Amino acid sequence: MADEQKQPVEDKLELMRHSAAHVMAEAVQTMFPEAKFGIGPTIEDGFYYDFDLPRKLTPEDLPVIEAKMKEIIKGNYPFIKETVTKAQARLLFAKQPYKLELLEELPGDEVTVYKQGNFTDMCRGPHVRYTSAIKTVKLMSVAGAYWRGSEKNPMLQRVYAVAFNNQKELDAYLLQQEEIKKRDHRKLGKDLNLFIFSDLVGKGLPLYTEKGSTIRRELERFVVDEELKRGYKHVYTPDIANLELYRISGHYPYYKETMYPVMKVDEEELILRPMTCPHHYQYYASKPRSYRELPFRIAELAKQFRYEKSGELTGLSRVRLFCLADGHIICSKEQAVGEINGALDLIEYVADIFGLKKGENYRYRLSLGDRKDTKKYYKDDQAWDDAEELLRGVLKSRQANFFEAENEAAFYGPKIDIQMKNVAGKEETAFTTQYDFVGPKRFKLTYIDSDGKEKEPIVIHRSSIGAIERTMAFLIEHYAGAFPVWLAPIQAAIIPISDQHLEYARKLEAELKALNIRVMVDDRNERMNQKVRDAQMDKIPYMLVLGDREVAENKIAVRLRTGEQLPAMSVEEFKVFIKQIIGTKSVAIKL
Amino acid sequence: MADEQKQPVEDKLELMRHSAAHVMAEAVQTMFPEAKFGIGPTIEDGFYYDFDLPRKLTPEDLPVIEAKMKEIIKGNYPFIKETVTKAQARLLFAKQPYKLELLEELPGDEVTVYKQGNFTDMCRGPHVRYTSAIKTVKLMSVAGAYWRGSEKNPMLQRVYAVAFNNQKELDAYLLQQEEIKKRDHRKLGKDLNLFIFSDLVGKGLPLYTEKGSTIRRELERFVVDEELKRGYKHVYTPDIANLELYRISGHYPYYKETMYPVMKVDEEELILRPMTCPHHYQYYASKPRSYRELPFRIAELAKQFRYEKSGELTGLSRVRLFCLADGHIICSKEQAVGEINGALDLIEYVADIFGLKKGENYRYRLSLGDRKDTKKYYKDDQAWDDAEELLRGVLKSRQANFFEAENEAAFYGPKIDIQMKNVAGKEETAFTTQYDFVGPKRFKLTYIDSDGKEKEPIVIHRSSIGAIERTMAFLIEHYAGAFPVWLAPIQAAIIPISDQHLEYARKLEAELKALNIRVMVDDRNERMNQKVRDAQMDKIPYMLVLGDREVAENKIAVRLRTGEQLPAMSVEEFKVFIKQIIGTKSVAIKL
Repeated sequence: MADEQKQPVEDKLELMRHSAAHVMAEAVQTMFPEAKFGIGPTIEDGFYYDFDLPRKLTPEDLPVIEAKMKEIIKGNYPFIKETVTKAQARLLFAKQPYKLELLEELPGDEVTVYKQGNFTDMCRGPHVRYTSAIKTVKLMSVAGAYWRGSEKNPMLQRVYAVAFNNQKELDAYLLQQEEIKKRDHRKLGKDLNLFIFSDLVGKGLPLYTEKGSTIRRELERFVVDEELKRGYKHVYTPDIANLELYRISGHYPYYKETMYPVMKVDEEELILRPMTCPHHYQYYASKPRSYRELPFRIAELAKQFRYEKSGELTGLSRVRLFCLADGHIICSKEQAVGEINGALDLIEYVADIFGLKKGENYRYRLSLGDRKDTKKYYKDDQAWDDAEELLRGVLKSRQANFFEAENEAAFYGPKIDIQMKNVAGKEETAFTTQYDFVGPKRFKLTYIDSDGKEKEPIVIHRSSIGAIERTMAFLIEHYAGAFPVWLAPIQAAIIPISDQHLEYARKLEAELKALNIRVMVDDRNERMNQKVRDAQMDKIPYMLVLGDREVAENKIAVRLRTGEQLPAMSVEEFKVFIKQIIGTKSVAIKL
Repeated sequence: MADEQKQPVEDKLELMRHSAAHVMAEAVQTMFPEAKFGIGPTIEDGFYYDFDLPRKLTPEDLPVIEAKMKEIIKGNYPFIKETVTKAQARLLFAKQPYKLELLEELPGDEVTVYKQGNFTDMCRGPHVRYTSAIKTVKLMSVAGAYWRGSEKNPMLQRVYAVAFNNQKELDAYLLQQEEIKKRDHRKLGKDLNLFIFSDLVGKGLPLYTEKGSTIRRELERFVVDEELKRGYKHVYTPDIANLELYRISGHYPYYKETMYPVMKVDEEELILRPMTCPHHYQYYASKPRSYRELPFRIAELAKQFRYEKSGELTGLSRVRLFCLADGHIICSKEQAVGEINGALDLIEYVADIFGLKKGENYRYRLSLGDRKDTKKYYKDDQAWDDAEELLRGVLKSRQANFFEAENEAAFYGPKIDIQMKNVAGKEETAFTTQYDFVGPKRFKLTYIDSDGKEKEPIVIHRSSIGAIERTMAFLIEHYAGAFPVWLAPIQAAIIPISDQHLEYARKLEAELKALNIRVMVDDRNERMNQKVRDAQMDKIPYMLVLGDREVAENKIAVRLRTGEQLPAMSVEEFKVFIKQIIGTKSVAIKL
């Protein structure tokens, strides 16, 4: 039972990886005859095996195990399957308590075991026929893992490995891993000094440095201004609310697990808000509304609080408090198609500004409900049918690249999710547009129509730039820290070659700052090349190197962070140049 | 004991007001012979008296009581003082349980009573000699008040009145009250649709409409941009923190009463942050700092949560969650004078932008500690002496109009408060600059000085634009809702005279919006005069009235919200005009 996968091992690569796990176990057994074995399933790109060993493995052990594995592979041992009774198995694995534990849980009277060389494992298979079928294995790391994932059980040592069809595939994988590691926003966030964490402030609660804050502020102002242009009412509503608000909305107790504890004050039960919608509904409902006021588009940079388990917290991408560029469009059913298109237009506009391409970086997912699951989804089959068909129609009419996913809707209706590929090639929901026919009922939202009758609107929940934290995490990785000029914390580094050029540098600094360009003078007592290298490390788009010639001719030698050198420009030319790059929010750093 | 004042009744006006309270009691006694009397002290501008009556007073009762008082005043009865033994007093006030209760608490064996006409009150005096010395009394309102302020006691009826030396003073007072009422930000906030409250969201938690949000956003961007220009590192830090952070800072349990309850999650105790300083210290302390990095100016638009009692909540000026334009300057002692001056310069700049004048609208208060109160103030006499002298020196060198106030400091050091006069003429602390020699010790903040030695910095806590909520409340009242153009939610209303002019109106709207001018077209089916009146009610600075002539000549007839008419302008002229008014943040709405 070295494999706990729910699906049978199917394709050749899977078969090879799973067989390699057995070989790894054999290699470990030769090094530690007293080893106890846990399980060894395949995972994405490879496999792992959990061992209970007399000593802690070090990174230096991995090549030793790997060499031993290669020997076994070269030995070309056959994988031999045997079916044995449970009683026989108990004898076979008498010294393997983890195997015995698994054995007792298996149904039936018989189990299969696989043997290669000197190693026998309890396993349902299948496997490759000979060990030589295993190509290019690489051991990656070792980490602690509780037996069966429970902290009440012993801590085992888990050795991770990858395996591919050939060296070329492995090389490509390792290169990609290198790139992912280099781009990891947690690493870049530290290297570029964008955000920090403090144990005293708390887990999952980032503090943005002035550099990270600059990026965040630019993102926030960009999306607020854009939403204002598109007719949104931008509001500020409180970060806490009476629990009753979430009882009515249905979030409580539905999302209770990820909500913070209630705070009792006076006669009220307050809670950190997990969602903004009920706040916006309260604003809408603060007076009678006419059809003339629809579509009623409300937007906010709204703080939201989600209690994530500490083990799940990850840099900026999984936090306990985030700021969502949230929005709710309250409109008539007839306006829904137009408004959903408007919401998607905005998302595509934002993505385009970031340099993210539809089809390449992201695609649409139509996330559907499940008529049978009345616990998870509000019961109203007709409303679900209509809303799903409406969203499908919108996607078709946009000729969008989309796929459908069952059982991915919100409890109040279906949605269109924008599935964004991250640097590891994995898709995650970055932005969303949701159709809600439940909220208006729960909060008794109405409007007086042109015929004088009271009617019920629908609500479209939508994001535009997403949660600032997650979007920043994504963008740091997407740009590998080299932000477009409009977002770069420092847009230009002025580098005087010697102290003689410092006065000119200060003058230039003042002139550029007057144009709201974020600029710094590197006045350290360092060699010019060092200053240029440091500015490149900081991913500053432009380095303005000032020497005798530049001062004499009132010019600037502009170097890009890519290492490229632009033709010398006058100060005035550079101002026009950089203002244009910033103004257009170009992702390119030269025209 | 009709008077509970701590100071003896001194000046003539006070004497008159206190005597009038006795006359009011007599008048009430003639109407309700069974009345029981509480106390009747003077207050600002007048006095009140608490009565226990057989029925609830209505506003219609007030002129009746007032008329009766005038009769008594006209009767010109003398106020006769008598000294009686407590035993005699017990007989005299046998049917007055509240008086008896007070009597028992008085020291000595004798008390004084004052008699005028048919009314005798227990009172230490003094009083005017004859009732005719009482001039121009006006009863203002009646409200419930618990006996001795405790809800465990009976609810009495408190009648408020004012009294002045003459009718002219009374008229001036009433006019001022009218103005205060008209400017009340709660009323204007509603009339101008700037913010709302929702019971479901919670008490003291305002929701800003898109109009109020526009003002807030302009204020926030203004102060952030200004602080960035002045070398602040603008950051974002989380709204919650581990309680331990506030244990170290000393805020907890010191300010426990106004902090929200602790939220236990996992292994952590989280709390809504009442102050930002410890967050900023954590940022500073995230790596070793050199003297080259000082002064280290950190600023943030920081949400702060204070649990205010529901009875103390008032519109935007007393809320349970506010956004403070907060800042902390970590610097060497030698830099303190310069940095405090910088902080005050910023405050004066902000005040000037708002049209608030030093000496007229505000003055400085040097808020000092108390060496003897070691419970309230950190114990370090020398540090207090030095810091107070330093702040005093700054104020003197600025030749600022300031006064000193004992026992008004923060627990960590003295401060300079900017005392702002509100529309009622009352002074409140609007902005502050505080010297802190305690925080750096508690958080072990250090820097490496130029001599290579580790040293302890000091911290200056400062606000710039204050708490956004309170500042907005103040400004709404200060401007009586007529905001300067740069802050006005809608800067211009385009008023087409008839449908024929609507196309031109839309074209103009688009042109102005392209310049980021907040403009609306009043396309309602109303007469022009009505549209102008409504725009004036909304305090929209400019009304652009478009008729045949304007369309033909490509001109605009510009009316101001004051009713004034500007000379006709071309569209281009108006664009230049309004951009200049907005760009300079002028409080005037014409050049």
